[in-house]
Amino acid sequence: MFSLFGSRLGLSISCSRFKVSSAIMVKYLQQDEAVNIDLELFNEYKFSVDQLMELAGLSCATAIAKCYRPDQAKGSVLVCCGPGNNGGDGLVCARHLKLFGFSPSVYYPKRTDKPLYENLLHQCLAMDIPVIENAPTADLLNSSYNLIVDALFGFSFKPPVRPLFVPILEALRNTESPICSIDIPSGWDVEKGCPESGGIQPEMLISLTAPKQCALFFKGKHHFLGGRFVPPSLAQKYQLNLPDYPGTDCCVKLTK
Amino acid sequence: MFSLFGSRLGLSISCSRFKVSSAIMVKYLQQDEAVNIDLELFNEYKFSVDQLMELAGLSCATAIAKCYRPDQAKGSVLVCCGPGNNGGDGLVCARHLKLFGFSPSVYYPKRTDKPLYENLLHQCLAMDIPVIENAPTADLLNSSYNLIVDALFGFSFKPPVRPLFVPILEALRNTESPICSIDIPSGWDVEKGCPESGGIQPEMLISLTAPKQCALFFKGKHHFLGGRFVPPSLAQKYQLNLPDYPGTDCCVKLTK
Repeated sequence: MFSLFGSRLGLSISCSRFKVSSAIMVKYLQQDEAVNIDLELFNEYKFSVDQLMELAGLSCATAIAKCYRPDQAKGSVLVCCGPGNNGGDGLVCARHLKLFGFSPSVYYPKRTDKPLYENLLHQCLAMDIPVIENAPTADLLNSSYNLIVDALFGFSFKPPVRPLFVPILEALRNTESPICSIDIPSGWDVEKGCPESGGIQPEMLISLTAPKQCALFFKGKHHFLGGRFVPPSLAQKYQLNLPDYPGTDCCVKLTK
Repeated sequence: MFSLFGSRLGLSISCSRFKVSSAIMVKYLQQDEAVNIDLELFNEYKFSVDQLMELAGLSCATAIAKCYRPDQAKGSVLVCCGPGNNGGDGLVCARHLKLFGFSPSVYYPKRTDKPLYENLLHQCLAMDIPVIENAPTADLLNSSYNLIVDALFGFSFKPPVRPLFVPILEALRNTESPICSIDIPSGWDVEKGCPESGGIQPEMLISLTAPKQCALFFKGKHHFLGGRFVPPSLAQKYQLNLPDYPGTDCCVKLTK
């Protein structure tokens, strides 16, 4: 299995420009590695989805608050949530953004009937977070939201995009509002990055647990790592070379 | 129902000396109010215990890291966990302390067989956190630990203390190592504070959700509020007058 370790293995310029503030190169995961690490967290380390999703969503909201201020034009944020765990991270993120003083709304077109997801949505509604029903156009995104959080698809995404999500991805491709993608820019190949046919170009990317290989092709302003819950033994097994999180911070900026 | 609002209601000196940095007096909860708020969080707002315990335990570890440095004599911390939710908060706290660079151990004499608690303990063990089996004496606490986290009993405690916990409470009463109590100094009456027969005197108290009335009798150095998850509507219903958490912090210092 080939592992990317940035400049340590003499990668091309497009790869080696990514390094972390602690000057240790993090590992960029293949899709199957990301899946296996996730499985180990749940099956071997016995974390519940509730626990890790709460910490992941909190780290996303925290990273966003470090880059965008809630008082910028009312801090209006649209959190676009997909049907899986990435969407769940988005729902948690929306709730914490609200507690941080932002004004988030949620777009959540394909809901699962699992109790956890129903409850996460309920918590948002109980916190007076509006849920919009129709897919927003790029014009609506431009006029109504200062930031779009892309929590549509995560590291288990495989193309093609389902028809229900084509309109929102089209709007995200064309909006002028900045996009913050959680873990993976939605629609991108988890390893190869932006599709040749064109894809979204987020201004911010928050990698969770460890960056996936597509993050090497991210050209936006802000790249953060969140999800400070990885047991050291798991990090060692997968040679994640995670950066040091500063103090008690739940996220860390990865610098180019 | 009588509500304490500090100096706003002209309470005695021992009460009015407690105020928060934002200069708004927080409310100090009666035991039945604390129980009802907890029930509403789970039943009305549909939070899971996993979610709130994760956030509560994280806020405790964060507050501790603000007051005690991990490099002080190796940052050796003993987290004493009771059988209920307070003990669960302690297990989560221990795990995050480990991620923050402390060297926590756990004492957990009365375990429940609920999967959540079994998994929280498993996560600690998987993070190489030692679990000590025998009740430590005051001498052992003095010689081996720089800080004791008291996560034995929470806001649902009613005396008397069960025999199994008498030795650890005796050790906590007599140790010279500083104690940090989570939510309630164990053995204290939730409303009336330290028992007349003598009780533990923690150096630090981390109130969760909102302080309970016994916190008015806390005389230690550091009083923090943690558990930044209370929906504004719930805070309003119970007139909690919570202080503003700074930025994205998950805890806030309450100043005398």
